[in-house]
Amino acid sequence: MRTQVAIIGAGPAGLMLGRLLELAGIEAVIIERRSADYVLSRIRAGVLEQGSMALMDRAGVSSRMHKQGLLHEGIELSFDGERHRIDFSALIGRQVMVYGQTEMTRDLMDARAASGALTIYEADDVQLHDFDGATPHVTYRRNGVTQRLDCAVIAGCDGYHGISRQSVPQQALTTFERVYPFGWLGVLVDQPPVAHELIYAHHERGFALCSMRSPSRSRYYVQVPADEQVAAWSDQRFWDELRLRLDPQTAASLVTGPAIEKSIAPLRSFVAEPLRFGALFLAGDAAHIVPPTGAKGLNLAMSDVGSLADALIEWFVEHSPAGINAYSTQVLQRIWKAERFSWWMTSLLHTFPETGPFGRRIQRAEFDYLRGSLAAQQSLAENYVGLE
Amino acid sequence: MRTQVAIIGAGPAGLMLGRLLELAGIEAVIIERRSADYVLSRIRAGVLEQGSMALMDRAGVSSRMHKQGLLHEGIELSFDGERHRIDFSALIGRQVMVYGQTEMTRDLMDARAASGALTIYEADDVQLHDFDGATPHVTYRRNGVTQRLDCAVIAGCDGYHGISRQSVPQQALTTFERVYPFGWLGVLVDQPPVAHELIYAHHERGFALCSMRSPSRSRYYVQVPADEQVAAWSDQRFWDELRLRLDPQTAASLVTGPAIEKSIAPLRSFVAEPLRFGALFLAGDAAHIVPPTGAKGLNLAMSDVGSLADALIEWFVEHSPAGINAYSTQVLQRIWKAERFSWWMTSLLHTFPETGPFGRRIQRAEFDYLRGSLAAQQSLAENYVGLE
Repeated sequence: MRTQVAIIGAGPAGLMLGRLLELAGIEAVIIERRSADYVLSRIRAGVLEQGSMALMDRAGVSSRMHKQGLLHEGIELSFDGERHRIDFSALIGRQVMVYGQTEMTRDLMDARAASGALTIYEADDVQLHDFDGATPHVTYRRNGVTQRLDCAVIAGCDGYHGISRQSVPQQALTTFERVYPFGWLGVLVDQPPVAHELIYAHHERGFALCSMRSPSRSRYYVQVPADEQVAAWSDQRFWDELRLRLDPQTAASLVTGPAIEKSIAPLRSFVAEPLRFGALFLAGDAAHIVPPTGAKGLNLAMSDVGSLADALIEWFVEHSPAGINAYSTQVLQRIWKAERFSWWMTSLLHTFPETGPFGRRIQRAEFDYLRGSLAAQQSLAENYVGLE
Repeated sequence: MRTQVAIIGAGPAGLMLGRLLELAGIEAVIIERRSADYVLSRIRAGVLEQGSMALMDRAGVSSRMHKQGLLHEGIELSFDGERHRIDFSALIGRQVMVYGQTEMTRDLMDARAASGALTIYEADDVQLHDFDGATPHVTYRRNGVTQRLDCAVIAGCDGYHGISRQSVPQQALTTFERVYPFGWLGVLVDQPPVAHELIYAHHERGFALCSMRSPSRSRYYVQVPADEQVAAWSDQRFWDELRLRLDPQTAASLVTGPAIEKSIAPLRSFVAEPLRFGALFLAGDAAHIVPPTGAKGLNLAMSDVGSLADALIEWFVEHSPAGINAYSTQVLQRIWKAERFSWWMTSLLHTFPETGPFGRRIQRAEFDYLRGSLAAQQSLAENYVGLE
């Protein structure tokens, strides 16, 4: 089998790239290790920047998002129970959209199904070949039979644990990493959210986040040690701990219920450079991870594939290599800014035993400064909604 | 002997406090361990915020400052040789003044000498007594004879190593500290400064700063390990290292000369809380230290004594305790914001072996973000010229 672009991974990055290429008349086949149902069952991010919304529009898959998505004009910060709202609309005239990654994935899957573009699910033993040579191709096993997909370009959209980055010779990659000494214990519950905007709370007991997926489905998190076990957290213990970290008014308004999902995600900052190796291009989590504070992960993946789609269209349609040559350098500029912001917001809001009492006072001073400074609030807002 | 306020330390903080009290008709005696010449020979800070300038005006000692001081409308940042100017005037319509701490001290000393207010220099074995009781007083030895100064209030303006903070029972103090793994090697030279504004340079070899005291006297610094010896640095080695850390244009323009002073200052963040213990009030370096990046030390001392003077005037003239009761809490708010900024600017501009390649990329991303963001530049500018 032959196609123009072999996309590894049918998450939102791979699906969006496939869709953008398809609309430009470029053929792409997506190869995914898991089943479609498995991909759809992964609970992930839920906040879209304006750039990601624009990409949904461009992909022609945004009608449900505009109907069901919740436009958020700000976030609430809470520090030891004192709250301060960051008003995106007033500060910078831009907003974000709460729309679950799962919903976005479904919209893109539906569009792909409708157009008849090929996605190969449950592909075992995916391998990337000769992407630095004349005959790039991908092999995989399906129902026990090995298949070969020849292509001009391979797009690695298969996440941090995927095969794409692992296929690059170690000496060709430079990696940068910070592993945080904690994770997020998250609970999904079918109850209305406690507030109509997200609340990011710093408390001496640790970080907490009140988030949501829809008007009837809420997502809450508490910071836990990196080696914590989910089994140690009954629903009751989770709700008790969450309440302790919130301001009294929010704690009192919280409507709890049985957890329909409960899991711990580690926090990590990671970047691999460069993002291109001959015919192989990395995008999204395959190349970089941000801690979830600031909701940059999905948005960064979207901006990566937006840029990659443009570069590939230039290449296939206009036969100009300018875009694909510039891809890695251009995209890394944006990635590092998002890494910086995610690191900063993580540093402000979590407790770090190793920075001691001085570090905690610096966090407090940062919050106090933020409350009093329009410039600091604008800086936070422009980063949160996405730098242009 | 009896006075209203015994001020410990005749540096700029003690002298300014004495002057402000004197102008309000409150008597103060200053007790200083060193000689006047020694105090004047200490080479220290050289950048005044608007609040410090206003205090010089209020003290009636600003005429030479307005003639000889250099109004600076911005600073230059340099990152691996790329420069970006932070334009204070355009960003926030405020400026700073380059005027050596030594000059400020001389102006205040001259005013004190003219008014005949008493400063006791070379006072040995200064001790603070009963500041939590009914008869606060200070004892000291002068020419071998022990003297006693009774007072209503003691103002501890005698710096980090002074006796004032050390006189407070340990259990009454909470201290916060961060010691940085490096110091600044500084050289003073009688040559015109290389640029008309300060240049703060981050380089992979370490931080460097091009500063000045006057149009004909320059002050340069390079980051060195905390355990470095001055003797290891010939003038030639210093200039060679400095040039390596600057952008090529600045390096080529540098006019060097024999060092008239060369010393290494450690970098430390330190805060003691609270600032009041009965009749004893701490101000300036006696209570807090900032790393010199951002030039906050002297300015923070000035804002401390400005607030303390107001509080004491309320107390002695209006017999209201509101100001002295609020002093510690109010001043600490400002102190922590300056601690945060100094820590941030230190973190951005120095090399930190312990944060590794990821930390260095975050610094780079911060610089790149700063270059592109008006909000981030405004935030830097408002902190540098002094939060209102």
